[in-house]
Amino acid sequence: NIFMGSFKGHALPGSFFLVAGIWWTGKYSLWHATRRNKSIGSTRLAGRSLQRRLEIIENSGVCPPLCPTGMLAEQFLADGPKLQLYNFAEKHWEDLMNWQHATMYLFFGLAATVSLVLHSTEVAPLALDRLMLAVAFFNEGFLFLYHLHGRSMLDVHVHQLLLYAVFAQAIVAFLEVFHRGNIILELLRCTLTILQGSWFWEIGFVLYPPSGPEWDLTDHSNMMFVTMCYSWHLAFAMLVVGVFVVRSRLKRTPPMEMGLLKTMERDAESEDDVL
Amino acid sequence: NIFMGSFKGHALPGSFFLVAGIWWTGKYSLWHATRRNKSIGSTRLAGRSLQRRLEIIENSGVCPPLCPTGMLAEQFLADGPKLQLYNFAEKHWEDLMNWQHATMYLFFGLAATVSLVLHSTEVAPLALDRLMLAVAFFNEGFLFLYHLHGRSMLDVHVHQLLLYAVFAQAIVAFLEVFHRGNIILELLRCTLTILQGSWFWEIGFVLYPPSGPEWDLTDHSNMMFVTMCYSWHLAFAMLVVGVFVVRSRLKRTPPMEMGLLKTMERDAESEDDVL
Amino acid sequence: NIFMGSFKGHALPGSFFLVAGIWWTGKYSLWHATRRNKSIGSTRLAGRSLQRRLEIIENSGVCPPLCPTGMLAEQFLADGPKLQLYNFAEKHWEDLMNWQHATMYLFFGLAATVSLVLHSTEVAPLALDRLMLAVAFFNEGFLFLYHLHGRSMLDVHVHQLLLYAVFAQAIVAFLEVFHRGNIILELLRCTLTILQGSWFWEIGFVLYPPSGPEWDLTDHSNMMFVTMCYSWHLAFAMLVVGVFVVRSRLKRTPPMEMGLLKTMERDAESEDDVL
Amino acid sequence: NIFMGSFKGHALPGSFFLVAGIWWTGKYSLWHATRRNKSIGSTRLAGRSLQRRLEIIENSGVCPPLCPTGMLAEQFLADGPKLQLYNFAEKHWEDLMNWQHATMYLFFGLAATVSLVLHSTEVAPLALDRLMLAVAFFNEGFLFLYHLHGRSMLDVHVHQLLLYAVFAQAIVAFLEVFHRGNIILELLRCTLTILQGSWFWEIGFVLYPPSGPEWDLTDHSNMMFVTMCYSWHLAFAMLVVGVFVVRSRLKRTPPMEMGLLKTMERDAESEDDVL
Repeated sequence: NIFMGSFKGHALPGSFFLVAGIWWTGKYSLWHATRRNKSIGSTRLAGRSLQRRLEIIENSGVCPPLCPTGMLAEQFLADGPKLQLYNFAEKHWEDLMNWQHATMYLFFGLAATVSLVLHSTEVAPLALDRLMLAVAFFNEGFLFLYHLHGRSMLDVHVHQLLLYAVFAQAIVAFLEVFHRGNIILELLRCTLTILQGSWFWEIGFVLYPPSGPEWDLTDHSNMMFVTMCYSWHLAFAMLVVGVFVVRSRLKRTPPMEMGLLKTMERDAESEDDVL
Repeated sequence: NIFMGSFKGHALPGSFFLVAGIWWTGKYSLWHATRRNKSIGSTRLAGRSLQRRLEIIENSGVCPPLCPTGMLAEQFLADGPKLQLYNFAEKHWEDLMNWQHATMYLFFGLAATVSLVLHSTEVAPLALDRLMLAVAFFNEGFLFLYHLHGRSMLDVHVHQLLLYAVFAQAIVAFLEVFHRGNIILELLRCTLTILQGSWFWEIGFVLYPPSGPEWDLTDHSNMMFVTMCYSWHLAFAMLVVGVFVVRSRLKRTPPMEMGLLKTMERDAESEDDVL
Repeated sequence: NIFMGSFKGHALPGSFFLVAGIWWTGKYSLWHATRRNKSIGSTRLAGRSLQRRLEIIENSGVCPPLCPTGMLAEQFLADGPKLQLYNFAEKHWEDLMNWQHATMYLFFGLAATVSLVLHSTEVAPLALDRLMLAVAFFNEGFLFLYHLHGRSMLDVHVHQLLLYAVFAQAIVAFLEVFHRGNIILELLRCTLTILQGSWFWEIGFVLYPPSGPEWDLTDHSNMMFVTMCYSWHLAFAMLVVGVFVVRSRLKRTPPMEMGLLKTMERDAESEDDVL
Repeated sequence: NIFMGSFKGHALPGSFFLVAGIWWTGKYSLWHATRRNKSIGSTRLAGRSLQRRLEIIENSGVCPPLCPTGMLAEQFLADGPKLQLYNFAEKHWEDLMNWQHATMYLFFGLAATVSLVLHSTEVAPLALDRLMLAVAFFNEGFLFLYHLHGRSMLDVHVHQLLLYAVFAQAIVAFLEVFHRGNIILELLRCTLTILQGSWFWEIGFVLYPPSGPEWDLTDHSNMMFVTMCYSWHLAFAMLVVGVFVVRSRLKRTPPMEMGLLKTMERDAESEDDVL
């Protein structure tokens, strides 16, 4: 099976989440900067229609081609189950892993479809797109959770660390249902997506090292190193997001008007003096 | 015992929750569509009194006949305990399962009674009905949780999966105490209710297959398949709710006025530009 | 030791929490009814100074005499440790149970003292009293949690069920820091306090039956019965609180003005139409 | 290794957190008192610029010198790894503990740097500083969590108790993202920081007693005593914070104007009458 249990099988989703995380970071830091500048002069509606168009492009241009492709690839490539679920001859389930991965793609595809419908029509409240995203991440974590039975200690551990990022993403996306447009939550979600992406690569390197000696999957000090490594990946993801934030904001705000902006923005942004 | 440990014993509550979930979905998507249109012209009070009448019908017409019937059936049908709790002769508890199911009915009956009182009088704040619903679901999950001792692996697993839906319903209903009328939470609860209903059917088919061979309750690959199956049930439940939402909203909103509505509605609906 | 490991040792805290729960229920349902009527005519300040005086009486008249008495009793009665913590002669800790109970009293005493200071002076924000209550309940649960090592199955189980009520109380009190004056949360806390009180009595009856045969502490069906029993105690607690709510509200609201009140109150109470 | 596994290795971080907790308590109770008095006369901006300057001093004067020093000390003092991560000769990881501690310092350093940037420029919303603090505490707890494998019972237990404080701090800091300036949450975080600091000292005394006999690390009654001890540390931390609060508020509020202040402040502070 080329999809899991191989270096490539982890590098592929890793790259996908890395790209998604960086794209989102760019999108949200751009919007946040635009929102700020609107208070100087540009019209509100311009920003909104741009935002809507960007969402439609993202959801129609990226997921609809990608998700069905992923599902079909899981089914028909190499040793996929080819839509056969149960092997009645030999009385066992056919390639359950591929079916599980196809199910994960299905939920991300659903989330993208719903988001597309929401942003191009007026059928339901916008907040549904975050709920669908939360469900998709939760579903991914849920399937992984029951994936780990009977593996070796380090294998279980690196996947558990992955689950922290996945469930944290689900929770943050669910919080966004109630705090839509909160830049802090959006950036946190971006950070966790990048973390998930880079951690997929790390899993590939640890479990299926493309070069060099194999890791001892039962050594406790390896487990401790991997835990610390996870912290470093988190710091790296925060750094990436931080660079985007600093660049996008500094470029756009003319320094002379800072003092003015500061006061206006504060009122909306923080409840520092409310208590 | 005809109520549990049988295909019928799972199909019955399954059908109940399926019907309840679909009824709620219809009710909430109807209300949400009505609320929207009110901004065009109809009076606010009309919608409110209709809403109140619907709640009273739901709570007086459905639960009062159903819950006591269920409790009596558990007690007196076939091999029920007939209100006897402890068998002093043989020194053991009498049909604890039936007593537990009767207790579950009791809490749903309480929730319906309180809801009926709240909507027809002015005794207490409306939000209490969601709290009672949360308590009823929590109680159901709580009794199931201590129900599973000593069963086989797959049996425990399918019931654990059921518990996810039950406790999630309890949490969502509790959140509704603070965010009453939030359509996202209402639809999420509907989805989970349908999921619980269809999963009860699935449990029936897995543990007591009406036709075909028995399942191997200790096979790990069966467990993995069942987990994935749960995801499919969730996707199915989301699909059902989605169809209702799309139908009820599209029918009612005249397309020409969409642009206008959009702006008005946004202000209330999303905090997209607040930050 | 007369305080724990005996019927009386559980009946005492049970009675305390029962009384506290019923007192709180009366207080909150009275206030809620008063608040409602204020919209008809009475001045706001009157209600507030009454409320403040009631709080001061509660916190100065009840806890200051009770908590130190409890702490002293734990220390000096019968076989208490008499302030000796470590027995250097025999190299063991002296009556750790009594010390733990004294610590629990200490935290409830602290909460009462802080509440007294807050309501009689202007030193700190009022919400601190709920935080202190949350800490006191959390501390109680925390000490019980590490109390159960090495006991028999049923003994552990009945105390775990107690912990559900205790930690739920801590969480509800913590939520009240942010939603102060929310009648739903206040009533929920009252219900849980009554549940805790009546469950203490139940523990006494199960572990130290004053008459009749001893319970088999290792029988699984006993455990299942006890779980169901917990649900019944919860239903009983909800019933008690419900009676208070219905009585206090119906007595005070003249039926003719109901329609008027309804509209006014709704606006503040529910966000039914906000979405 | 001088940093962990020694009395000094626990006393050092203990002192750090004690100082940090007391500094924060002073800062927040001062601000809260200042905010109150502003309603009498002083200008709002004065308070704000003072606040900002204090934040900059705190974050530039304390952490930038401390965190790199800590990281370098972990690496180069005594038997540190001297930036060597893997010992290829003997095929084992080099001093993983020191690397983990350096990683913890790294995250606190990151949080301080981000806070410094936020308060001296306008790059990103202020709430990010609490998110970074939450991440730093979460990371500390996370690394400790996988630190405990294979130690003796009491050793594991005292570190688990530490984790309660650490994760509670992370949660409170995360809540502050949404409730910035809430004095209750700020004081709770101060309390937990002081608790963490004094508990580090306690760990030092229990595991590496500088004088007197060693503790029996497998005795269950020691474990029960230590649990109770944790409650006492919590009570002590609450006492310290309480003294600060009472002193700073009483000193600054002229008693004659109390009645006036009370009314004004209430409106903002509590939702006592909102329901």
